[in-house]
Amino acid sequence: MPIYTPPLRDMQFVMHEVFNVVDEFKNLPPHAEVDADTINAVIEEGGKFATDVIFPLNISGDTEGCTLDKATHEVKTPAGFNEAYAKYVEGGWPALSCDTAYGGQGLPFVLNQCMYEMMNSANQAWTMYPGLSHGAYECLHAHGTDEQKKIYLPKLTSGEWTGTMCLTEPHCGTDLGMLRTKAEPQADGSYKITGNKIFISAGEHGMTENIVHLVLARLPDAPVGSKGISLFAVPKFKVNADGSLGERNPIFCGALEHKMGIHGNATAQINIDGAIGSLVGQPNKGLAAMFVMMNAARLGVGNQSLGLTEVAYQNALAYAKDRIQMRSLSGVKAKDKPADPIIVHPDVRKMLLTAKAYAEGGRALAIYCAMLLDKELHHPDEKVRKDSGEMLALLTPIVKAFLTDNGFDATVMCQQVFGGHGYIKESGMEQFVRDARINMIYEGTNTIQSLDLLGRKILGNNGATLKKFGKLVGALVQEEGVNEKMAEFINPVAMLADQMTKFTTELGFRGMQNPDEVGAAAVDYLRVAGHLVFGYFFARMAQVALREIAAGNTDPFYGAKLQTARFYFAKLFPETASLMRTARAGSKPLMETDLALA
Amino acid sequence: MPIYTPPLRDMQFVMHEVFNVVDEFKNLPPHAEVDADTINAVIEEGGKFATDVIFPLNISGDTEGCTLDKATHEVKTPAGFNEAYAKYVEGGWPALSCDTAYGGQGLPFVLNQCMYEMMNSANQAWTMYPGLSHGAYECLHAHGTDEQKKIYLPKLTSGEWTGTMCLTEPHCGTDLGMLRTKAEPQADGSYKITGNKIFISAGEHGMTENIVHLVLARLPDAPVGSKGISLFAVPKFKVNADGSLGERNPIFCGALEHKMGIHGNATAQINIDGAIGSLVGQPNKGLAAMFVMMNAARLGVGNQSLGLTEVAYQNALAYAKDRIQMRSLSGVKAKDKPADPIIVHPDVRKMLLTAKAYAEGGRALAIYCAMLLDKELHHPDEKVRKDSGEMLALLTPIVKAFLTDNGFDATVMCQQVFGGHGYIKESGMEQFVRDARINMIYEGTNTIQSLDLLGRKILGNNGATLKKFGKLVGALVQEEGVNEKMAEFINPVAMLADQMTKFTTELGFRGMQNPDEVGAAAVDYLRVAGHLVFGYFFARMAQVALREIAAGNTDPFYGAKLQTARFYFAKLFPETASLMRTARAGSKPLMETDLALA
Repeated sequence: MPIYTPPLRDMQFVMHEVFNVVDEFKNLPPHAEVDADTINAVIEEGGKFATDVIFPLNISGDTEGCTLDKATHEVKTPAGFNEAYAKYVEGGWPALSCDTAYGGQGLPFVLNQCMYEMMNSANQAWTMYPGLSHGAYECLHAHGTDEQKKIYLPKLTSGEWTGTMCLTEPHCGTDLGMLRTKAEPQADGSYKITGNKIFISAGEHGMTENIVHLVLARLPDAPVGSKGISLFAVPKFKVNADGSLGERNPIFCGALEHKMGIHGNATAQINIDGAIGSLVGQPNKGLAAMFVMMNAARLGVGNQSLGLTEVAYQNALAYAKDRIQMRSLSGVKAKDKPADPIIVHPDVRKMLLTAKAYAEGGRALAIYCAMLLDKELHHPDEKVRKDSGEMLALLTPIVKAFLTDNGFDATVMCQQVFGGHGYIKESGMEQFVRDARINMIYEGTNTIQSLDLLGRKILGNNGATLKKFGKLVGALVQEEGVNEKMAEFINPVAMLADQMTKFTTELGFRGMQNPDEVGAAAVDYLRVAGHLVFGYFFARMAQVALREIAAGNTDPFYGAKLQTARFYFAKLFPETASLMRTARAGSKPLMETDLALA
Repeated sequence: MPIYTPPLRDMQFVMHEVFNVVDEFKNLPPHAEVDADTINAVIEEGGKFATDVIFPLNISGDTEGCTLDKATHEVKTPAGFNEAYAKYVEGGWPALSCDTAYGGQGLPFVLNQCMYEMMNSANQAWTMYPGLSHGAYECLHAHGTDEQKKIYLPKLTSGEWTGTMCLTEPHCGTDLGMLRTKAEPQADGSYKITGNKIFISAGEHGMTENIVHLVLARLPDAPVGSKGISLFAVPKFKVNADGSLGERNPIFCGALEHKMGIHGNATAQINIDGAIGSLVGQPNKGLAAMFVMMNAARLGVGNQSLGLTEVAYQNALAYAKDRIQMRSLSGVKAKDKPADPIIVHPDVRKMLLTAKAYAEGGRALAIYCAMLLDKELHHPDEKVRKDSGEMLALLTPIVKAFLTDNGFDATVMCQQVFGGHGYIKESGMEQFVRDARINMIYEGTNTIQSLDLLGRKILGNNGATLKKFGKLVGALVQEEGVNEKMAEFINPVAMLADQMTKFTTELGFRGMQNPDEVGAAAVDYLRVAGHLVFGYFFARMAQVALREIAAGNTDPFYGAKLQTARFYFAKLFPETASLMRTARAGSKPLMETDLALA
């Protein structure tokens, strides 16, 4: 059976030693009192919940899956899932970073980030139920009417109800402009919604007495395409004026998808047969409202793969220390055993260190993004709020695509460490791979993320935000440029930042001539950008570790951190060389003739 | 439902136009009469078998899986599997490249290679039953006693019986030196075998009346380690002197593994409780005898991934032409539709072309290897036989590891082309990924292949065989060096060959100082070698295509082949730059301290 230990030490290192989050919180009025003890206590308790309550349900949930009762349209989730959710509610976890105005605890997103990383390590399929729900909370909090907020936010905050996002239809996923679900205005100001949705995560279940579906649909007079889409809140059970539940709304699960992984999550086909809903935000501005939820979800998906990377790493590491097979090439290491533990073999270590570096780099990036979100929401200085939002927007597609590509590779490598035993279900390793696979697809495929990054977030503002990230790198160079011990970490990042600036300008020119040049380069470009970001954070983490070691701190954590950073720059970062080359090869080899794909 | 069309045209191109196999066969006495018509007729019929008989059972076989009756120890394979096997036998397919002395058709391995590629595209799990059986045939043909040959070879040739290879035990896979299964000599010259084996592919089934298990075990006086392992033929039912079946031998399936994929294949735990077997080859030389089977199996595993790459590509291509979503960045392409087919998008094309290039490069390499095998077995000139065998030995780990790594990436990319629909079982795409995953693990993990390549096959003979491959590259440069049109294909290969020569020498020196340097570089090195080989074959294919186009041939096949070659050199080959860099980074970042993995 798989193991999992919450990586509290590394989270604390990133929060307290690298980013000094408590100092940052002091500048954010709602979080000014949040201290390190609170933070540490919350993540410790969160880790217990993840480890004790939902981790034991991960394999059983995968094996059992969800079932639909076609007569009642009700879905049965795997054994133990409902009880685990009840404990989650009882512990007040849904409220962690929700608005105190609706019963929330109002704690920073940084904490929510850590909590979700651990829950994703423990059980991604289960975690999607509260995860989607929190996205619905964010969307209604930002765009709901006062009445919608009054009805829904307290229930979503307490966890008594959950929420979903209903976007995809059979003929449209990426291209939501083509969606067909209709919304007809009713005399009482409500809307009657009709249509068919697919791939609705956590779309139906018996964990809560009600579910609020956020549904994209078209008004009768709506313009064609993506400018004619509106957003509606459509509850499973209508809500009476006194807040009690009314009649069942005809928004039914018609079938459950048979999937490669995340079997414990009910991925539903949702048939909407004249269900009554209310408009969220402005008519025809539904996509903008939904994007609040989408951006949160994209960070959330990156976090899913971060969680899987960590848990896969822990298991592969334990196996590699325990499993004996062959002798070390450089001589017998375990004289008392008939063979050496496989951790002595260089390539086994390379696979382990790859997963470790992806987990640690990803954690730093994800916590940094959560900090940006807290600042965007609560910093008293408008410019800081704006800058934080822009930087977060730049980093969001990187979190989504880079962390999920890395996470897939990491889970595959950790499975490989197990040899044939990794292919067997009981090891748990193959489930991590199957679960990680969806993260590269949903909430916008990783190709879409790359176009969002390069086309919109970078070329769309002439590289202004990228330059701001470049300034962070520049500041580090300024600060540590004379420190010889930092050279091995800073030099490659500074060089790549310089190359990227030139390359981005070049791509901007090329893209003006031929937009397919942007499409052809985007995926490689995003990976290069991911390494720029990881490289920067590894340099900052190395800076702290070097400082501690110089100050006489003998905690082996710092030596290990330095070695992971060195491994990262020696063995992973250099792929940027090839990526720049293939990106530069342009669109011609892809587009020149239709013959290629005959 | 997935589609599949046998790639007959490309197979014919490789066999007839690139390698001129018929001319090569003229030099091999048993194959001197094999002409192009025979070859084409056989692969056409083989393609029909794959498409009509076993392809329809691929998804159903995955869904149903195999079941063990614990009372009888009999295994039920998925519906239709037994009937498909009966048709396979009826068609005489098991005999295709078997020795005519035992009822075989004696056709070249080149044909068997094409047949198996198509069967693997259609149904990898099913194809493993005859595949393992053919391996057992090879082993007994090479190392069996006259009596073993007389008993087993006609039955394996006709397909009336099948065979397995029983190597792995719970505590040893890679490190067979630790195996514990015992063989006690009996008074009548037979051996009584006792032990437990796991991961035995096609280990039990009801397709045939008997199964011959080739079992590795230890004699009582055997030296410790891998030098004390012997090989035994242990039939499920004992065979009487007249060839009829005798009593059941106590070699039972104790359980079936629950796996990530290849559900249609019965991966068995085999309990051997004093079963009677006969010695194959010399006492304590079992590993050498088994290696005949292993080498065939390693080529076979590469071929499995080649098959999956092709079928995944075909399905992704069809989907990309059909599915409409978003408009082309460079302007509307399908004016009559609400969106453009996704094949207009550069990154979708990149994913498709990656799979296409991996399939076409892999096919050329695999057919080349089969040709080498035919020459090794049948060329009248001993030196040619020896050279062919050495070149095949060099290329075998590349076929196994490079084709299976590529195949996994290709199936993942082709699944990605389907977006969310690729994660749903009904598309068939996720099964290709799950099935492809095992190919990187079994028959020696890809790490083991890389050590075999770099440590044994290259540094082990001071790069002599690699130099011979370099001479092939040199000959092509000689031949086409003045042809400007070939420069784009030849130059990168020639440059890489040169770099590899230097790098190999460097690694040889480093390895002498510290053997871990070899282990640290091997996986990257194998991938570079894979590109050298692919690059060479793409250059040769481009040479033929250019010649045909220059001669006025208007078949669009040649233009498409050129474009795939150009894509390959522009977008895939450049990863060698990073791989050389990370390989050169050496073992220190992996080995320097134990802290890293704490």
